[in-house]
Amino acid sequence: MANHTLEGNRLEAIPRQPVSHRALISAVEGTLADFLACQIPALDTVDPALGGFARTARDLVMAGGKRVRPTFAYWGWRGVAGTGDTLEAVLPALGALELMHTFALVHDDLMDRSETRRGRPTAHRIFAAQHGDRFGDSAGILIGDLCLVWADQLLAKVALPPSVQLEVRARYDRMRIEAIAGQYLDVLGETDPAAWSVERALVVARHKTASYTVQWPLGFGLALAAGMDHRIEEAYQTYGIAVGEAFQLRDDLLGVYGDPAVTGKPACDDLSTGKPTTLLMLARQLATPAQLEELAVAGITRQAEIIAATGAPARLEEMIRARVAEGVTAIADAPIRLDAKTALIELATAVTDRPA
Amino acid sequence: MANHTLEGNRLEAIPRQPVSHRALISAVEGTLADFLACQIPALDTVDPALGGFARTARDLVMAGGKRVRPTFAYWGWRGVAGTGDTLEAVLPALGALELMHTFALVHDDLMDRSETRRGRPTAHRIFAAQHGDRFGDSAGILIGDLCLVWADQLLAKVALPPSVQLEVRARYDRMRIEAIAGQYLDVLGETDPAAWSVERALVVARHKTASYTVQWPLGFGLALAAGMDHRIEEAYQTYGIAVGEAFQLRDDLLGVYGDPAVTGKPACDDLSTGKPTTLLMLARQLATPAQLEELAVAGITRQAEIIAATGAPARLEEMIRARVAEGVTAIADAPIRLDAKTALIELATAVTDRPA
Repeated sequence: MANHTLEGNRLEAIPRQPVSHRALISAVEGTLADFLACQIPALDTVDPALGGFARTARDLVMAGGKRVRPTFAYWGWRGVAGTGDTLEAVLPALGALELMHTFALVHDDLMDRSETRRGRPTAHRIFAAQHGDRFGDSAGILIGDLCLVWADQLLAKVALPPSVQLEVRARYDRMRIEAIAGQYLDVLGETDPAAWSVERALVVARHKTASYTVQWPLGFGLALAAGMDHRIEEAYQTYGIAVGEAFQLRDDLLGVYGDPAVTGKPACDDLSTGKPTTLLMLARQLATPAQLEELAVAGITRQAEIIAATGAPARLEEMIRARVAEGVTAIADAPIRLDAKTALIELATAVTDRPA
Repeated sequence: MANHTLEGNRLEAIPRQPVSHRALISAVEGTLADFLACQIPALDTVDPALGGFARTARDLVMAGGKRVRPTFAYWGWRGVAGTGDTLEAVLPALGALELMHTFALVHDDLMDRSETRRGRPTAHRIFAAQHGDRFGDSAGILIGDLCLVWADQLLAKVALPPSVQLEVRARYDRMRIEAIAGQYLDVLGETDPAAWSVERALVVARHKTASYTVQWPLGFGLALAAGMDHRIEEAYQTYGIAVGEAFQLRDDLLGVYGDPAVTGKPACDDLSTGKPTTLLMLARQLATPAQLEELAVAGITRQAEIIAATGAPARLEEMIRARVAEGVTAIADAPIRLDAKTALIELATAVTDRPA
């Protein structure tokens, strides 16, 4: 831990220069690949079918993605990491976040009945192709469960004092509870979109996405550095909620107007499932009576046009800008290492102004 | 920890007398009730729907059941617990096993499409009654996920040194992986029961049931007492696998011949889902060609009669007896506290010769 981290050019303990984004992602993916390679033989020995099950889970984890959560956790850690802290010591924790993310994606895809993810079949579809839909659903649940437990096993490999590990886990647990709560509200919203609201959609965005994409990964990084400082905690939290919500609002826009070739998801996926996103709730609020009437009966391509005509997408862009600005201000004033500050300011824009 | 635990009447650290079974169950349930009561208000504050979601999870956890896993963990701990160890310190860990069990039951019931459990609607059916089948399935997945994370949060409340906690978690993780692997084989078996075998059914029994019902709870108890002794470890493992498999074999018999009023599950539940249990696999092995032919086309009541006629239930009873004897022998020779030895010897019979 370090109170003496401000613009810490005198520190020699962690490398003066942060690792490049590419090197970071490659280190996280290497950690994941090594860990997963060790899990498979034991399951293979029990029954070859289990080896196949584990390999499918591994392929889903390694299939790519933006690795946003390990990136935020890295900078959360780097912002306060002190003498003696090495990236190697915390890499398993960064990888664990990605395993937890695979758990969430696999279960979410099952609930949303999504067919593709990152341009490939989703977990339950892979297994449905082997032995039918019901088996696909069961195996999808179990792949998610497996990834969640693997995350705990990888997290246990951090080279940190046991008391620090327990503090990291306490935050990790809170993050998981919020993600599950957010997902519950998300599926509840779909059962009765007409009764949903902008406010509730934002609660979902905050709990389902902001919490476990930005806010808690930063706090998790802080705990990894044993860096409990009230001001930093607060700055990370403000930044995390604001940028995390903006991240979800961008997702709302991409879910309707994104290019399927880039997002890896079908066009207008959210509209076809009737998900009451902030975008859709806002469009309903802004729509003229005629637009509202047409929205209820139109096909999804036409729905996308009507939503655009209500001005909701432009309002969402404003909301994204305001949140990014709030996050940037919070982090600019925080007493953290300068390189982390710069990186987090850049990331605020990068993750909320993206094509996929 | 204690090497000096043999028949330890000189020990004053833990109560001389073990708690009664009723007092133990009541202490575990009190721990669970207190923990769950603390989780609900925070979720209520986010959205009242989340409070309702959490209350449903709580009711499922508190709905009863035999509390077999905390019981084995208690005796595993008591067998070696030394000076200064108190039951209060480890109660959260015993409760955590029960939360983990609720996770497993909720996800298993969803995969098996079971309608009732302990005489009440299963989790996914409770939610399906609110907003339809698809919502029921999604909420069922999330209730399981919530219980799994709650288990980790409760586990974190044990009053033990951080390094001991991490060792307990390492065992807990291995247990969870085995339970998930066993469940995967279980659902895989149902996709092609004709290709299944007695051997594979026993692998499922060992991983899905023995591992997380007896074997690992005992090892978990050992870790809670920081009681690493190679001979005890081995005795617990031998006992755990043998008695745990016998527990599942009894379940196989109850699944076909149990009284629904006592088991809380529909009659012949396993037969109607076509689950390739050890009982069914053995019946197929022992059946005459005529019985085999009839078994393939008969209704479930007739199937139960044919299985009985093959002699498979009697063979299963023999297998149960042999396993109980193996477990009892292993524990009789183990250097553990006498009261724990007596209790585990009694439990070997109690959990494998039960009506539900």
